[in-house]
Amino acid sequence: MAFTYLTNISLDQARKDYVRTLVELGFQARTEWIRVQDAFGRVTARAVYAHINAPHYACSAMDGIAVRAGDSFGATETTPVRLQKDQFTEVDTGDPVPDGSDAVIMVEEIVRNDDGSVTIHAPAAPWQHIRQIGEDVCAGEMILPSLMEITPAAIGAMIAGGVMNLEVLAKPVVGIIPTGDEIVPPCPDPRPGDIMEFNSSIFSAMLASWGAEARTYPIVPDRYDRIRDSLARAVSECDMVILNAGSSAGRDDYSASAVKKVGEVLYHGIAIKPGKPAILGYRGAVPILGVPGYPVSGIIVIDKLLKPLIDRWYRREYDDGSRTKAKLTRPVVSGLKYQEYVRVRMGYVGNSLMASPLPRGSGVVSSFMKADGMVEVPQGCEGYTAGEEVRVRLLREKQQLKNTLVVIGSHDPLLDELADLIHRENRSQFLSSAHVGSMGGIMAIRRGEAHAAGIHLLDTETGEYNRAYIKKYFPHGGVYLIRCVGRLQGLMLKKGNPLGITSFADIAKDGIRYVNRQKGSGTRVLMDYLCGKHNVDRDQIYGYEREEMTHNSVAVQIAGDSADAGLGIFSTAKLYDLDFLPICTEEYDLLVPEEVWNTVQVRQMIRALKSAEFKSRIEEMGGYTLDRPGEIIDVF
Amino acid sequence: MAFTYLTNISLDQARKDYVRTLVELGFQARTEWIRVQDAFGRVTARAVYAHINAPHYACSAMDGIAVRAGDSFGATETTPVRLQKDQFTEVDTGDPVPDGSDAVIMVEEIVRNDDGSVTIHAPAAPWQHIRQIGEDVCAGEMILPSLMEITPAAIGAMIAGGVMNLEVLAKPVVGIIPTGDEIVPPCPDPRPGDIMEFNSSIFSAMLASWGAEARTYPIVPDRYDRIRDSLARAVSECDMVILNAGSSAGRDDYSASAVKKVGEVLYHGIAIKPGKPAILGYRGAVPILGVPGYPVSGIIVIDKLLKPLIDRWYRREYDDGSRTKAKLTRPVVSGLKYQEYVRVRMGYVGNSLMASPLPRGSGVVSSFMKADGMVEVPQGCEGYTAGEEVRVRLLREKQQLKNTLVVIGSHDPLLDELADLIHRENRSQFLSSAHVGSMGGIMAIRRGEAHAAGIHLLDTETGEYNRAYIKKYFPHGGVYLIRCVGRLQGLMLKKGNPLGITSFADIAKDGIRYVNRQKGSGTRVLMDYLCGKHNVDRDQIYGYEREEMTHNSVAVQIAGDSADAGLGIFSTAKLYDLDFLPICTEEYDLLVPEEVWNTVQVRQMIRALKSAEFKSRIEEMGGYTLDRPGEIIDVF
Repeated sequence: MAFTYLTNISLDQARKDYVRTLVELGFQARTEWIRVQDAFGRVTARAVYAHINAPHYACSAMDGIAVRAGDSFGATETTPVRLQKDQFTEVDTGDPVPDGSDAVIMVEEIVRNDDGSVTIHAPAAPWQHIRQIGEDVCAGEMILPSLMEITPAAIGAMIAGGVMNLEVLAKPVVGIIPTGDEIVPPCPDPRPGDIMEFNSSIFSAMLASWGAEARTYPIVPDRYDRIRDSLARAVSECDMVILNAGSSAGRDDYSASAVKKVGEVLYHGIAIKPGKPAILGYRGAVPILGVPGYPVSGIIVIDKLLKPLIDRWYRREYDDGSRTKAKLTRPVVSGLKYQEYVRVRMGYVGNSLMASPLPRGSGVVSSFMKADGMVEVPQGCEGYTAGEEVRVRLLREKQQLKNTLVVIGSHDPLLDELADLIHRENRSQFLSSAHVGSMGGIMAIRRGEAHAAGIHLLDTETGEYNRAYIKKYFPHGGVYLIRCVGRLQGLMLKKGNPLGITSFADIAKDGIRYVNRQKGSGTRVLMDYLCGKHNVDRDQIYGYEREEMTHNSVAVQIAGDSADAGLGIFSTAKLYDLDFLPICTEEYDLLVPEEVWNTVQVRQMIRALKSAEFKSRIEEMGGYTLDRPGEIIDVF
Repeated sequence: MAFTYLTNISLDQARKDYVRTLVELGFQARTEWIRVQDAFGRVTARAVYAHINAPHYACSAMDGIAVRAGDSFGATETTPVRLQKDQFTEVDTGDPVPDGSDAVIMVEEIVRNDDGSVTIHAPAAPWQHIRQIGEDVCAGEMILPSLMEITPAAIGAMIAGGVMNLEVLAKPVVGIIPTGDEIVPPCPDPRPGDIMEFNSSIFSAMLASWGAEARTYPIVPDRYDRIRDSLARAVSECDMVILNAGSSAGRDDYSASAVKKVGEVLYHGIAIKPGKPAILGYRGAVPILGVPGYPVSGIIVIDKLLKPLIDRWYRREYDDGSRTKAKLTRPVVSGLKYQEYVRVRMGYVGNSLMASPLPRGSGVVSSFMKADGMVEVPQGCEGYTAGEEVRVRLLREKQQLKNTLVVIGSHDPLLDELADLIHRENRSQFLSSAHVGSMGGIMAIRRGEAHAAGIHLLDTETGEYNRAYIKKYFPHGGVYLIRCVGRLQGLMLKKGNPLGITSFADIAKDGIRYVNRQKGSGTRVLMDYLCGKHNVDRDQIYGYEREEMTHNSVAVQIAGDSADAGLGIFSTAKLYDLDFLPICTEEYDLLVPEEVWNTVQVRQMIRALKSAEFKSRIEEMGGYTLDRPGEIIDVF
C-alpha cells in the first residue's frame, strides 16, 4: 500500500523551522549542580568565581628561615647581620609564614652559630621566597566564564579557589520508545518473524557521543492507545523523545496520530531518502521526533534532526560534519524528489581519494558500520556518473583513510583475517575490502582504485589461473601478481545431502534449488565453465539467475533452506556446517599495481601474508593450500 | 637543602626505556567481557564474528503476496495468470516468507478477484522483493577486526549478528596515592598550612580523557612505612600506580625509597622542568610513577610519562599532540640543563599566531587552565628572544584560537565579565586577556599582538587620560580609542581602617605596610604621580617595591593581613570587603588597531560594551561610571 505524507519539505528548512519553533516555545538547557570532581567535560551554566584565595595563606616557597625583612637590612659580605633565635622561624616549603615575618631566606644562604643564632650576608627583600596569598587564584576572580567545557586543570583551579560544587548544563535526557508487534529485545536466538530491537542501542550510543543521555522505554506493541500512553509518559519525564515506529504504513499512521494527540506535528515527511517518514513533533518545548524503523533511516533522521537540537541545548554551533571531495568509483542514481544519502567506502590510492557506493538498503546496518563517508545527492539531482568528483561527508578521520589498504575484487574470508592481522600489528593501519568479483577487481586496479585485488580467474582454454587475464588486461605490465592461496571449490550442499547430489550435473535435476554467484565473479566464471564441461543446460538449473555476492551469503541460503546447492569454497561450507562435493582447486592470488608496491600498506600486507600467524589461521579455516604466499608470480 | 637525583636523563630516552622495560616484563592490556550495549567507544580485544544471520529468516521487503515464483511464469499483460487462494499468502513488510514461497509480488501489482483468487500480469522472478537471510550480516562473518573502536552502527551490527557480549580491552585502572602531612581533602575553608589535595582530581580527569580509570587512595602522611604499605596495596590492585609525593626534599626521598622497596626504580630524575623529580619505577609489569607534588609538574610528568603507557596499553601510536609555529611576544629564558615547558596564551591577530608566556610557577594551576599551548625549550637551549618564531604544542583547537579576541593591557575585572558576555552570546567566540599594565597594552598594540588593550594612563601635565599617550605612541594614527568606563581609584584599606589612614600621605607613616602595582601599569603611573603631588617620599613607603600584577592580588594581600594599604579600584575593594579612601576617577578605555576594527571579534566586543547586560553587570560591581561605552573617542 502506497501512502502519502503530509509534507515533502527540504531538510534544511525543516531543521531550521523545528529548532526555531522549539526555541520560541522555551526549549533550552536545564542546569544542575554537581561536585567539581565530577565536572570533567561538562559545561558551565554560568561564570564560576573563586570563593577563596589560592594559596589561602602566605607560604614559604623554599626550605629556610622566615624573618622580618627589616631585621636583615644592611647585611653584606663584609658586614654580616646576626639574627637571634627569636628573630626567625625555621620553615619548609609550603609552611605558613609566621605572623610578623615577611621574607624567607633560603637554607643555603644562612650560617648557623653555636648559640642557635644565624648569620646572613645579604639583606632579604620584603616578600622574597614567599608564595603570596592569591598567587594562583584570587577570591572573587572569575575562574571560568559561562558555557565553558571543563578541563582537568580547570577542576584543579576551581578546587584551589574553594569551589566544591558548580552549576553545569544538565545532559538532556532523551526518551526512546521502540514500537512494533514483531519487535523483541536482543537475544542470541530470535525466532523467525522476530525483529531484534537494536535501534535503541545504536541511538543511545549516538546520543552519548553528543552529550545526551538515553532512556529507553519498554517496547510498545502496534496499538494506538498504548503508543499514545507511552508517549505521554516519556514527554513528561524527558527533555526530548524519539518515537521509533515500525516501518510499514499502518504503524507510521499510529505514530503520527499519537504525536498529534499528545502534542503538535510541525512536519510529517521530509524530502530525504532514507528517512522520509520522519515526524517532527513537540509538546510544549519537548521535541517528539518520529523516526522510521529501519536502522539506517533512523540513524540519518536522528543525526539530521535530533543532533541540531542537542547542539542548540549546549549552545554549540550546529556541526554537520566535515566534507571533502572524492572520486566516485561507480555511478550513483538518485530520484529527483528527495535529497538522497548514499554510504560509501573510501580510500586513498596514490593521491586520489576514492568513494565506492555501499548497498543502499535501509535495513543493512552493517553497511553503515562499514561506511567511511556519505554522498549527499541533492534534491533535484539525478545522481552522478562513475569517475565524477563529488562532495562527501566524512564519517572517519582523513588520516585513517590514508592508512587504509584498499582491496577490491573477489571475496574470500581470508581477507577479513588479513585485515585483522594488519590492524593487530599496527592499530593505525586498516584494510578495507569490497566484494565485486574477480573481474571487478581487475577493473578497479586498471582504474587505480585499489591497492590490491583478490582474483581467481580460470583460463578455460589452458586451465591456468589468472595469468592469461593479466596479460590481456595489462598488456604493458605495471602490475604484480602475488601468490596467496590455493582454494578448494565445490558444491556446498545441505547437511547430510538429503537430495543425494553426487555429481556436478545433478544440480540441473528437478526439485534442486540452486543459488548462483554474481556475473564477473571468479566463481561464476568457474560455474559457467563447469556447465559447459559437464554439458549442463543453464536454463535447466532452477535459481541460476539468483545471484549472491559472497561465498558466505550463498552458504547462508543453503543453511537456511532457501536453496539446496551452490558453488563455493570449502572453508565456507565448513563454517556453515554444510556438506561439500569437491570439484577443483583454484589459485586465489592478489593483484597489486606497481605504483603502490612500496607503500606502507602493501609492504605490511606482504609481511602479513608471509607470517606464521596467517598460515595458522588459514589452516584453521580449512580447504586452503599454501605455497609461498606473498611471493611475486612471474607473469610477463 | 639542595639535593641530587640519581639521573638527569632526557625525556625521550627515559620514555622509550620505560615503555620497553615494561613491555619486556609483560606489560599489556587486560581484557574483559561486556554487554554489547555497553560497548560504545570501547576497543575490541579480538575479532568479532557473527553468530547468526541478519535477517535470520527470509522476510518480505514489501507489503504484498508471497508466492512460488514458478506458479507465476508465463504471466503477461495479454496472458494474465490467476493464483488461487492456496497459491499465495498475504505478507507485510518484515513478515517471514512462508515455506514453499520464493517470491513476493507487490500489492500494487495484483488484481483481486471476487472468489479470493488474484490475477497477475507479469511473472515474479525467484527471490524478488525478499530480504534474503544474511543480507545484512552472515553467521560466521567477521563483523569487526581486533583493536577496533566500537561505533554506534557496530553495536547494531553485532546485535543483528546475535553477538550479545564481547571481549574488549579493559580500561586500565590507575591507582593514585596522594601523600603529605599537610595535605587535606578538598574543602571550602582550609586552615592556614593545609594544602588541598586536588591533584588526584586533575589526574583523574586526564586519565578519563585517555580511556583509563582512576582509583584514588586515602591521603598518606609523610611516613616511609605508611607510603610503602599503601604503594604495595595499590600495586596489587591496579594496572598502574601514581605516587604523588610532596614537593620538598625529604618527602621525595621517602617516595624513592618506598618504590625501591616495593619494586625497582629505572630512573629517578628526568631532564625536564618542571617535573625533574619524577621517579620511573615498576613492580613486575605494573608501572609505579613517582610524580612531584606541585600540580603543574604533576600534569606534565603524567602527560609525558604515563600517557605513553596508556597509549601502549591500547596499542595506539603514542600521540604527543600537534605542534604549530607561533611568534613569541616576550622572551623566554631557559636553563641549559633541562628541557623546559613554558605555558603560553595564544591568539591570532590578523594572520599571525602569537604566543605569550604565562607565569611559570609550578604551583599555579590556573596558568595551566589558561594555557593555549606549551613552548618546549630543548635541553641545551638558552631560550628565545621576543619576536622569534617557535614551535608550540597546541592545547586547544586552532579554530578556537582563530575565534579569540585577544586583549592585552591593564587589568580590570570587567574584562572577565566581557569575556562571559561574549562567550554566552556565541559559544564559539572567546576573549582571552593578559594583564601587563597600560603601557604593556600600548606596546602590544604597536607590535600587532592584540585586538584591544585596556588603558588608563594619566597625562600628569594636562590631567587628561589616554589621549596624550596615544598621540605619542601612535603619531600616525591607525588606532581607535573606545570609551569603556570611568573608574573610582583610591586606597584600599583593611576593614574598619584600624590604622586610621585618612589621607594619601598617611601611607608613608611608620608601621604601614604598602603593597604596590607593577611598573608600567596605569595604577602605578597614578601612584607615582600622587606621590609627587602629595610630596610623599617613595623611599619612606614600606613595601613600595612589592609589586602585584592586578587589583585583586593587591586587595588579597590587604584582606589577608600581609599589607595595610594599596592603590586600587572601588569594585575590587568592595569585592574583598575592604575599606576604601577615594582619590580620583580615571578613564579606563580600550585601544583597538584599525586593521582589526571590522573583525568578528571586535564587532562582538563593541556590541557587548553597548549592551544592557554589560551596563547592569558593571553597575552591580560598583565604583564605575558609564558614558556611552563602545563609542569612538575623538583623539587625533
